[in-house]
Amino acid sequence: MVVDNPQQPANLIPELCRSFYQDGSLEPVVEFVFVMGLAISLSATSQTYFSSDKVYIAPSGVQKERIKPTHIFVLPYPQAAPSPHTDRVFLRRPATNLKESACTPLFWNSFELRNAGSCIHTHSQHAVMTTLLWTGPVFKISHQMIKGVRVGGTGPALSYLDTLELPIIENTPNEEDLKDSMAEAMIKYPNAAGVLVRRHGVYVWGNDWEKAKTQTECLDYLFEIAVKMKLAGLPTLLNSE
Amino acid sequence: MVVDNPQQPANLIPELCRSFYQDGSLEPVVEFVFVMGLAISLSATSQTYFSSDKVYIAPSGVQKERIKPTHIFVLPYPQAAPSPHTDRVFLRRPATNLKESACTPLFWNSFELRNAGSCIHTHSQHAVMTTLLWTGPVFKISHQMIKGVRVGGTGPALSYLDTLELPIIENTPNEEDLKDSMAEAMIKYPNAAGVLVRRHGVYVWGNDWEKAKTQTECLDYLFEIAVKMKLAGLPTLLNSE
Amino acid sequence: MVVDNPQQPANLIPELCRSFYQDGSLEPVVEFVFVMGLAISLSATSQTYFSSDKVYIAPSGVQKERIKPTHIFVLPYPQAAPSPHTDRVFLRRPATNLKESACTPLFWNSFELRNAGSCIHTHSQHAVMTTLLWTGPVFKISHQMIKGVRVGGTGPALSYLDTLELPIIENTPNEEDLKDSMAEAMIKYPNAAGVLVRRHGVYVWGNDWEKAKTQTECLDYLFEIAVKMKLAGLPTLLNSE
Amino acid sequence: MVVDNPQQPANLIPELCRSFYQDGSLEPVVEFVFVMGLAISLSATSQTYFSSDKVYIAPSGVQKERIKPTHIFVLPYPQAAPSPHTDRVFLRRPATNLKESACTPLFWNSFELRNAGSCIHTHSQHAVMTTLLWTGPVFKISHQMIKGVRVGGTGPALSYLDTLELPIIENTPNEEDLKDSMAEAMIKYPNAAGVLVRRHGVYVWGNDWEKAKTQTECLDYLFEIAVKMKLAGLPTLLNSE
Repeated sequence: MVVDNPQQPANLIPELCRSFYQDGSLEPVVEFVFVMGLAISLSATSQTYFSSDKVYIAPSGVQKERIKPTHIFVLPYPQAAPSPHTDRVFLRRPATNLKESACTPLFWNSFELRNAGSCIHTHSQHAVMTTLLWTGPVFKISHQMIKGVRVGGTGPALSYLDTLELPIIENTPNEEDLKDSMAEAMIKYPNAAGVLVRRHGVYVWGNDWEKAKTQTECLDYLFEIAVKMKLAGLPTLLNSE
Repeated sequence: MVVDNPQQPANLIPELCRSFYQDGSLEPVVEFVFVMGLAISLSATSQTYFSSDKVYIAPSGVQKERIKPTHIFVLPYPQAAPSPHTDRVFLRRPATNLKESACTPLFWNSFELRNAGSCIHTHSQHAVMTTLLWTGPVFKISHQMIKGVRVGGTGPALSYLDTLELPIIENTPNEEDLKDSMAEAMIKYPNAAGVLVRRHGVYVWGNDWEKAKTQTECLDYLFEIAVKMKLAGLPTLLNSE
Repeated sequence: MVVDNPQQPANLIPELCRSFYQDGSLEPVVEFVFVMGLAISLSATSQTYFSSDKVYIAPSGVQKERIKPTHIFVLPYPQAAPSPHTDRVFLRRPATNLKESACTPLFWNSFELRNAGSCIHTHSQHAVMTTLLWTGPVFKISHQMIKGVRVGGTGPALSYLDTLELPIIENTPNEEDLKDSMAEAMIKYPNAAGVLVRRHGVYVWGNDWEKAKTQTECLDYLFEIAVKMKLAGLPTLLNSE
Repeated sequence: MVVDNPQQPANLIPELCRSFYQDGSLEPVVEFVFVMGLAISLSATSQTYFSSDKVYIAPSGVQKERIKPTHIFVLPYPQAAPSPHTDRVFLRRPATNLKESACTPLFWNSFELRNAGSCIHTHSQHAVMTTLLWTGPVFKISHQMIKGVRVGGTGPALSYLDTLELPIIENTPNEEDLKDSMAEAMIKYPNAAGVLVRRHGVYVWGNDWEKAKTQTECLDYLFEIAVKMKLAGLPTLLNSE
């Protein structure tokens, strides 16, 4: 299953984790996770050639820059969201005693509610600071470079004149327990391209891994500049709504 | 056309995009673009050997660290500024369904109004913060390391005793619609080495790709320190003008 | 003794120092040091195969990104904490006139008091700023991503609902003189996963090098966000204690 | 003259410039320069094997990450400080029309007044911000990690209980015109390991390239934390002097 093709998810996930780690911008220190699967269309620059019946998940609690292709979990799809652990069905598990990402049930939200092909979770300090400085249930920003973000994460691109809105949910001690409140927030904010978790981080998804990654980077850029603006006393919302 | 020479623009643009991405300092997250062409003199350390009749343009909406030489567009020069899309003439387009950078008409401003050989557009947060903290139509700074910037972008170097001035234009939803206001600003400020776009980023040009890149880095350095100074309550302009 | 295995401590320490240096996040500018040894279990992803009778120590006062395997000191274990210098027993010393890290006696605290398998010392500016903004004898934070940190550094993971506490000891001109006050603080705060040194840095340990490294990164993440929160006027402690 | 030995100055300078550029911490955007020569003892980890009769100087106005060994200038030593340009004697000049660093006469100060073996000039924003926030003729800091800095740059290491002092001189339009005021400051502050130039950067030297580089990094660390402390309202000087 782990072949030589660098675009194969089991090869790609370690490369992307390493790249994010070296970059440092997304602060992948604790449990940065990356999931891909479903119809992984490799965007405009490539062919769609991975079938939509597998989900590839990174392991939990390991050094993200040292993940190897053989550490990746593969789950069948569709299946009911795999929660709790004992219910999960695997097509392939690492030989070593690793556990799959604790976010697994949350990734399923993006597959089921948005038909996403890839989902990313980060503990970016820009995301966390955003949830501390925006104390309500939603973060809004307008008149910034929001056009790299898509409506609902998988729809058409936002325009410069739109307002970007992301719900903020409250954290829980166990990541899996966020599943229901995240789903609720996604239903209440159907145009949101991600969900912020207070004092914790953010979930972002897209049609394929390239769009999920690009939107993660765009949103992180927006969190960063929003925090800078707030601390400098500048308004982040010009629209009247 | 894509040969083994690393200095060939189709090879150089991907390398530079990757380098800027890894560096992180220019925040190339959304649509960082890079254009080169015309008389590409490879500065003092090399020979001028590319003809002045081609413009090489990076694709739009792709991951900047993963651009390949075969993704680069080549347009003939001179031709009227290619706007709208349907009017554009290409010598070569990527086989995949990529689009050339939406900034293409804006790059033409630098060729036509300044005789530039290369133009760079970034969404640097330092540039954006500068446009938020300087609310008027122009950014000025003096008594900093401005001597790496050239008068008008293609003239002699500024002196430590000069004042650097860059016009700030208002953003529009479609990047192409900035063409006229950018041209106006360039005519009104003939000594400006770049144009800031409020809440969006900056355009910088130079006689060749090396000078465009160096000036982009110098200006970004100045935006960064100007923002730090402003937030620390320090004046950024000592000259009396 | 220096074999080709990249997991061999004498090979691993230079790689990790180089990686921290390039990353920049831990500011390894002056005397960043890294020690490993004892029962080095290479975590879940690997076998435990290094014996517990050797301690590997990086040299002092050299460029951390240029350490070579042959620069690593090897000391027998157990032995009484090697202080002062003249008392130290070595299994192997570099041929050149290097000195072992001045932190050597302090690393011994983590072995003897916590049964740690690896200990890391950094001069991270986030750690130093934390000791400047928290002027008392202890740093506390809650309701952040603290679950990457273990009770006492070698016990079970903290929960999101726990409060992380680290003692802060006062600096001394000679690093070795910190040994006793560090030991006192470790005894007084048995649940602390590290010890901050005012105006100097932090010591962090773990069961093996991977856990020591992960906890160093987690704690540095927490110092960084704690400083941001403090400067933004946000409370870092929500628990009532 | 340019041989395969990576420790040969003509090979080492490009590597170090590239490393500083990629690191980003020293902001080498405008004219970062690096000089070495004299008795280049390669520190404890190596042999002294370069003769003391040559000075190697990087070119001016080029992209620092793209310097090649053949771009390095070689000057004989001793000779009177080479100023103005027409007086300079070279053992070797690049074939292309490059110019040697404009700092050349300033580097000579470190050779003649401190017997340094290497000198580094950076435009670090931390250094520049330090000169803006310390408006007098001297920067002082105590009770930080100053022990990586040596008395006068080439003497014994400072102790934690000492106060670090660096003179700040006023900038001039032409870098060469700083020669006399820099020399004056070095004579007035014989214990200073470097000279800050207001609104411009810093000069740092050492017995050999490794010590010059380490001290440049230490001082940059101190400038960075000093600026953070000042902006947070924390005193940077605890000693009574």
